[in-house]
Amino acid sequence: MTLNQYTPEEDISSIATALAPAALGIVRTSGKNCIALVSKVFSRPNALLEAKGNTLVYGWIKDGENKIDEVMLAVYRAPKSFTGEDMVEIFCHGGPAVVTAIQNLMLKNGFRQANRGEYTFRAYINGKTDLTKAEAVKEIIDSHTDISRSHAAGRLAGNLFEEIDSIKKLIIDTLAAIEVEIEYPEDEETIADSFNRDDILLAEKRLTNLAESWKGEKLYQDGARVVLAGRTNAGKSSLFNAILKEERAIVSDIEGTTRDWLESWASINGIPVRLFDTAGLRETSDVIEAQGVELSKNLASDADVVLYLVDSTAGMDENDKSFIKNCREPLIIVYTKCDLEQGSCGANEEKNSAPLEGVADATVCGRSEGETSPVCISSKTGEGIAELFNAISGILMTGISTEREQAGLGSARQKEAVCEALECVKHAIISADDNYTLDAVVQDLEDALDFLGEVTGDVTPDDVLGSIFANFCVGK
Amino acid sequence: MTLNQYTPEEDISSIATALAPAALGIVRTSGKNCIALVSKVFSRPNALLEAKGNTLVYGWIKDGENKIDEVMLAVYRAPKSFTGEDMVEIFCHGGPAVVTAIQNLMLKNGFRQANRGEYTFRAYINGKTDLTKAEAVKEIIDSHTDISRSHAAGRLAGNLFEEIDSIKKLIIDTLAAIEVEIEYPEDEETIADSFNRDDILLAEKRLTNLAESWKGEKLYQDGARVVLAGRTNAGKSSLFNAILKEERAIVSDIEGTTRDWLESWASINGIPVRLFDTAGLRETSDVIEAQGVELSKNLASDADVVLYLVDSTAGMDENDKSFIKNCREPLIIVYTKCDLEQGSCGANEEKNSAPLEGVADATVCGRSEGETSPVCISSKTGEGIAELFNAISGILMTGISTEREQAGLGSARQKEAVCEALECVKHAIISADDNYTLDAVVQDLEDALDFLGEVTGDVTPDDVLGSIFANFCVGK
Repeated sequence: MTLNQYTPEEDISSIATALAPAALGIVRTSGKNCIALVSKVFSRPNALLEAKGNTLVYGWIKDGENKIDEVMLAVYRAPKSFTGEDMVEIFCHGGPAVVTAIQNLMLKNGFRQANRGEYTFRAYINGKTDLTKAEAVKEIIDSHTDISRSHAAGRLAGNLFEEIDSIKKLIIDTLAAIEVEIEYPEDEETIADSFNRDDILLAEKRLTNLAESWKGEKLYQDGARVVLAGRTNAGKSSLFNAILKEERAIVSDIEGTTRDWLESWASINGIPVRLFDTAGLRETSDVIEAQGVELSKNLASDADVVLYLVDSTAGMDENDKSFIKNCREPLIIVYTKCDLEQGSCGANEEKNSAPLEGVADATVCGRSEGETSPVCISSKTGEGIAELFNAISGILMTGISTEREQAGLGSARQKEAVCEALECVKHAIISADDNYTLDAVVQDLEDALDFLGEVTGDVTPDDVLGSIFANFCVGK
Repeated sequence: MTLNQYTPEEDISSIATALAPAALGIVRTSGKNCIALVSKVFSRPNALLEAKGNTLVYGWIKDGENKIDEVMLAVYRAPKSFTGEDMVEIFCHGGPAVVTAIQNLMLKNGFRQANRGEYTFRAYINGKTDLTKAEAVKEIIDSHTDISRSHAAGRLAGNLFEEIDSIKKLIIDTLAAIEVEIEYPEDEETIADSFNRDDILLAEKRLTNLAESWKGEKLYQDGARVVLAGRTNAGKSSLFNAILKEERAIVSDIEGTTRDWLESWASINGIPVRLFDTAGLRETSDVIEAQGVELSKNLASDADVVLYLVDSTAGMDENDKSFIKNCREPLIIVYTKCDLEQGSCGANEEKNSAPLEGVADATVCGRSEGETSPVCISSKTGEGIAELFNAISGILMTGISTEREQAGLGSARQKEAVCEALECVKHAIISADDNYTLDAVVQDLEDALDFLGEVTGDVTPDDVLGSIFANFCVGK
């Protein structure tokens, strides 16, 4: 969506719920004539036409005499709606055939299929939302864990917008003081007097915090890849299931059609994690152990964390050691089936207690010091799973502040603009410190404001707008 | 749900949309206190508490100070709601994490998770719907094609209820006449005088029509299994894709995890068809041709229609002939790749035109006369696909009236009750014809009424109720 694609005279319509059998479904419409258009296929046209904003109207969607479905219509009158235009949301039964039939009827009766993110785009154009909140809408829909959702909800509620706004205020106040200085240079003061250094240093610090927040926010948005590796019978499948049972991801499994591994979302201490297991292969064909290791190796090469499983009742062999030594990704050695050992296998104990025979620590395998210590688990009893989760999140959160900041960034686009603004502010400070002309400082600060305006959408270039809304789902 | 599970004092809540990323999601609540309970976790409690029925209230769902999501609440006041109770529907963003977080918050705040079909059950108990409409709700959600949906919508609109009601009226009028006769047997007339034979014969005819409608309705509800069989390279995969492209089923593919075939819903002339293809196997391993035939054979043994594909450029071999001869399911021989032949391969031509060499008709393979003629197709050009669809639906619709009847039955349960009622009516006719006592006829007709009452839910035994609602999805 770019500005010249804003076509308020066109009424748009789309399915807004997932196309799978469910109790309820929603077809969403917006536009100047949408109430009149829907009334043409509604059993009680006058009730709809006369309905006030924010009310619900009961009736049937009909195609001529053919009854499509019994529905409730939610009626919104401009400007009090999500898009700021008149809107009708059709709450129908959730069968894919029903919602599809209704949407097709809309398209036959004057509506155009809405583009991705077009409702939010119209809301933005009509001043109902800024870009940080608009992007938070997409983010909240895509969030995989409750922590991800809560960060997005914060931005949707405006905490990022307010933080940006308050940083802008610091810069604007300084600019105002400098402008006065330029217009009325009566008492020949130095630049230092009009340049409020403390304010600008504070702006710099807060922009730096924002920029640094992105690494953590990105982790909560995109998640991380965790691969279970190890020989067959090392216990990969059991651990996979134990992790899913322990902290079942909210999003259901996505099953590929032709692949040799299993994958599923899991929440590990609130971090969305895409968990990969090679167990699928073992089930369907005869695979020699080395092949299992080979497959793990390929998957592991793209992992954020590799869990290398070793059956603690069997111990490590040369295959294991070679894999661990050659794996270049962060790796945790996981001794499995520790319930079968007499007592604990030692890996979770104090460092100075001697591990049982067959249980090597990472250094044995040629990996450098400072690696994560091995973890000993039992998928059966759940022993050690919490320690394993802490070890995984420890690696993933490296360099990420765990303190909950006031506000964090919600997209790479925002990060880029904030970094540009930060550079401008830094340059302004240098210019001021070096006693450059006031004009140079003004230019830097104005550039910073422009970049911050891009974050919230005050001064967003058209192509940036286009790429923002292209990532939305239809119906939003 | 059985009658003693009706607990109006309990407030119920559940997610009502599919748990997949989408623009919007719905959490549905119902019960005496539901408005007050939701207000406790809503940013504008007074706006909600004071809201009139059938209105929308904007705000945030909050867990203490933690903002969960920006929502619209649809408020319904008893008895003007789906369940007949107070209801609040929470329209939130469609992210699985969001709807789950909201539902969990409801459960923490006084709501109980709704059972399958509990909203519809409450609607039924509160006289908002009868059982034929209640079952149509489930049916419309599950419908796979637009024709399936439209039949269900007819029942939801009450056409089956009205048909049953009107049949009941015929019986009730006759019963009333007989009762008068029994109470005031003043002029010793024969039974024939009070027994309105025409009315009861009409009731019998209409019950028969209803009972016979089930075969067709079941086909549109459950769909049929169509299996693509044939040697490797016969063109199964291409035809599979061509059919899906031609008439893509509304419901998305369901991919099994460990299986050797592909399956997908397709709509063939409006009939939902589960299409099976063995092509998956061929892609992943070395299979000799005989194995492909073997696999087809296993799948075919449970098919409603088998499409046996023969490459028209290669012609039939002994494997083909043996398969066709031994297949006991309805089978259509499909000559593929007819675009590669010079002109048509002849199978779609007039019967008396000589088929090309290599193109045998069914009788050659030892199948009896009266079988469906071979069809010649090109998956590439689409030639012959329409003829193939007609041949498939011709077999599936055998014995099913294609005329759109006034009303059809929506479930096996209804069919059973209607058949019982039909038996009683038939027995009443025989009793009357044989001049049995009036009491015997009365008993038959009263039994018939009871069975019809079961269909609509006037006199439905508790265990029947239980099994009806157990099949519903949660949230409905």
